[in-house]
Amino acid sequence: MPREVRERQMLDAAVAVFARRGYRAASMDEIAELAGASKPLVYLYLHSKEDLFSACIRREAEALIAAVQASVDPGAPADRRLWNGLRGFFAHTAAHPDGWAVLHCQARTHGEPFALEVAALRQRLVDVVTRLITETAEAGGCPEPLPEVEVAGLAHALVGAAESLAGWSNGRDGAASCERQTAETLMNFAWTGLENLRNGRRWAPARA
Amino acid sequence: MPREVRERQMLDAAVAVFARRGYRAASMDEIAELAGASKPLVYLYLHSKEDLFSACIRREAEALIAAVQASVDPGAPADRRLWNGLRGFFAHTAAHPDGWAVLHCQARTHGEPFALEVAALRQRLVDVVTRLITETAEAGGCPEPLPEVEVAGLAHALVGAAESLAGWSNGRDGAASCERQTAETLMNFAWTGLENLRNGRRWAPARA
Repeated sequence: MPREVRERQMLDAAVAVFARRGYRAASMDEIAELAGASKPLVYLYLHSKEDLFSACIRREAEALIAAVQASVDPGAPADRRLWNGLRGFFAHTAAHPDGWAVLHCQARTHGEPFALEVAALRQRLVDVVTRLITETAEAGGCPEPLPEVEVAGLAHALVGAAESLAGWSNGRDGAASCERQTAETLMNFAWTGLENLRNGRRWAPARA
Repeated sequence: MPREVRERQMLDAAVAVFARRGYRAASMDEIAELAGASKPLVYLYLHSKEDLFSACIRREAEALIAAVQASVDPGAPADRRLWNGLRGFFAHTAAHPDGWAVLHCQARTHGEPFALEVAALRQRLVDVVTRLITETAEAGGCPEPLPEVEVAGLAHALVGAAESLAGWSNGRDGAASCERQTAETLMNFAWTGLENLRNGRRWAPARA
């Protein structure tokens, strides 16, 4: 069997075990067994548990980013891009719940190198959303550009909302079948708000 | 010194050390030193590092929930309640960045008991928001009640957005002075969207 195929099987097994057990409790024995490989071969190809976990994070992060990017047509109107990006995001997290659990739950606090890799992934998602919001505001009827700090805040809010919904949605029965509904809920939350904002309609405490 | 005061000093020190070092790397020596107490006294009062971490989570969670509840006037209109709740949330997380770091970053993945306590706190925040959204929809011009699953999704989106913004805001310079701005950003994101929703105006893919 080519090394590439073997390595993919090992990573598949590792993602499943890390998602279920967490980094510390996961055993290389279990990963090797699930991959149908010998433990020495796993060490030969992927070096150490730490390297294996890093490889899982990198692979799952790249796959998620690629899924989001592939689902967006850069020439489409802003709401269609957001809608398609969210559908790509939720379809991917629903189809790969173990990968999402590794990225979102397991990798965050297991020491600096892992947390930094996940933070870098998150920043790429925030950057995509920041660009989208900036372009949306420019294309809308907003009388002046949104302040940069507000765009950054909105992007972090949107990414946080999507992360939270992915976890909630994956915890429901039949998660894979409701990605569309989850994306629609977030559009109703975020877009209808952003749509007002792009047209210069703001909420203000004075109105309350 | 009364035991109550001593214990509070120990918890203050523990929250600071856990936030900085993480659960595993935190040492009882450092916590005792920062609290100005002997290590045996810390063990006498708070039993073990695990119990101490649990006590930190419980105290910080209760303080955060209490701050949000105290900032909301139950008789106020829905947008005012949301605004005040968000201001209470961001003011508290900005004033207690170590407590927030323990709850949001450190406690999540250090084994079942801690993760479960944090999940329970999060569920209480989701419940508060769920009630608010349900009442908002009822008070608005929404022709029929929002489906329960959509209200749950919106509540998880809002809590996720607030968590994400608290982390982002605390990472900025002068975090404590911008809690109002952060709350306003989230109102512009969430309320203006919810306001449409409560009046039966939805985003739909067909419109795109």
